[in-house]
Amino acid sequence: MLKVPEHQVAGRQAIDGKLGPLIDNSGHFYKPLQDDDERGTRELTFYHSFSSNTRIPHHIRRFFPVFHGTQLLKASDRSGLRPHLVLQDITSDHLNPSILDIKIGSRTWYLEASNDYIQNCFHRDKTTTTVSLGFRICGLQIYNESGFWKPGRKLVRNFTADDVRSVLRKFVSSNVGPEPDCCFAGSVYGGCDGILERLLELKTWFEDQTMYHFRSCSVLLLFDKESFLRGKTPFAEVKLIDFAHVVDGNGVIDHNFLGGLCSFIKFVSQVLADLKGSTMEDKI
Amino acid sequence: MLKVPEHQVAGRQAIDGKLGPLIDNSGHFYKPLQDDDERGTRELTFYHSFSSNTRIPHHIRRFFPVFHGTQLLKASDRSGLRPHLVLQDITSDHLNPSILDIKIGSRTWYLEASNDYIQNCFHRDKTTTTVSLGFRICGLQIYNESGFWKPGRKLVRNFTADDVRSVLRKFVSSNVGPEPDCCFAGSVYGGCDGILERLLELKTWFEDQTMYHFRSCSVLLLFDKESFLRGKTPFAEVKLIDFAHVVDGNGVIDHNFLGGLCSFIKFVSQVLADLKGSTMEDKI
Repeated sequence: MLKVPEHQVAGRQAIDGKLGPLIDNSGHFYKPLQDDDERGTRELTFYHSFSSNTRIPHHIRRFFPVFHGTQLLKASDRSGLRPHLVLQDITSDHLNPSILDIKIGSRTWYLEASNDYIQNCFHRDKTTTTVSLGFRICGLQIYNESGFWKPGRKLVRNFTADDVRSVLRKFVSSNVGPEPDCCFAGSVYGGCDGILERLLELKTWFEDQTMYHFRSCSVLLLFDKESFLRGKTPFAEVKLIDFAHVVDGNGVIDHNFLGGLCSFIKFVSQVLADLKGSTMEDKI
Repeated sequence: MLKVPEHQVAGRQAIDGKLGPLIDNSGHFYKPLQDDDERGTRELTFYHSFSSNTRIPHHIRRFFPVFHGTQLLKASDRSGLRPHLVLQDITSDHLNPSILDIKIGSRTWYLEASNDYIQNCFHRDKTTTTVSLGFRICGLQIYNESGFWKPGRKLVRNFTADDVRSVLRKFVSSNVGPEPDCCFAGSVYGGCDGILERLLELKTWFEDQTMYHFRSCSVLLLFDKESFLRGKTPFAEVKLIDFAHVVDGNGVIDHNFLGGLCSFIKFVSQVLADLKGSTMEDKI
């Protein structure tokens, strides 16, 4: 029994007769291969290359959804059978996951792309936080007592640097109002199992690896308040998703992804630093 | 007695009646303030801000030329008196310095610039190694027995990734032919006083500092074979130059400079890694 993913926060959705990903009840995520451009082929090529690449360290492989090959399935747009990537559904272990989808890099285009594609990306990069911050939030949902806060696409697209700072605080708060309490920040962002530590692991790999350049790729942060309150681990996860624009690194590090990742790491660190600052003030 | 700098490898030169920098015999470098655009003012503003900024660590200040204020001087284009920045002449301690001028960052434009400026930079960035490698070599001179090897601007502008790799090997070789011996690589790039260690210090600062964004800024590598052979220190130096396009960091790290710097660091590391590899082969 396939269904529309409940916790998708960005990308094309399988609603209103459109083509989009589907999930099942056993933890699989089915992503349709599109035939209108090279994206699907490129993503499939990446998963094949990555899953058979013996130079990927074990602790880095954990950041990527598990790849189970492809499968012919009835497409969500009712166009008939279509090949789908079969991937791990990374939300399936979580009851009410808070999710942030962050597209990393100050540039989403690449030299190998068509001129139209470059111009479109160039415009979008300048008018979002991509150029200024080196990343942009593409979508999010934050769980709280009254359900999910899930701002619309237009709102997210117009996020400023201050909006980003605010979202990063709300993500680890019990409330999403104007004064988020950041009560989960220490355990979700900080600590040896926290998101910051995971991002730093990823950074170390990107300082060295020259095999792939991840254009328009997202870092997904997942955090489940209920798992946390029940003491389940992992209650917070970092995953990389969307590899339709991965290109060959040609012996050069992915300085675009690395720079954006470092900028994002600094934003997360600042939430923790502010927390320490305010705790110090409380004590004075 | 002012004269044209002997060891300038990039930028506008004070020759053929043009406006350019001058030096004296006491280690000063005089850079004219241009009145045709905001560059001069912005560079002066940067030097004022930087030299009075108490948050700059001592070990980071060493990377910047010392600033001695401004002075009215007869301009090299014979247009009369003009204000000049008075800076440290970083080549004055070296007899025959080999120099690499590397413009850091995969993007030389910035959102605050005019549309024409952005388009010009965008084109230049795509057609040099700026976009692909995150940096480009802007000029160089390498000293060897027969004098200086100093390729022309057009040649340098057309450098590919492989040309960059080759230049980085020639820079630390006794010969500049097709098979550079890299005999100075271990001591110039490696070691605790070497260039790689300096670049890593700079990287650590850029991972944290959110005060300035260094657009179109260069890292200058200087290495003096004679100082080295005489056991003088420092025989190799790393300096940052050209601050006409420094903009406010607004609390965000300079992910553009940092990404490019990391990519350049990887290129330098690879010269050392190849060296180890070939020494291993010799032993087998």
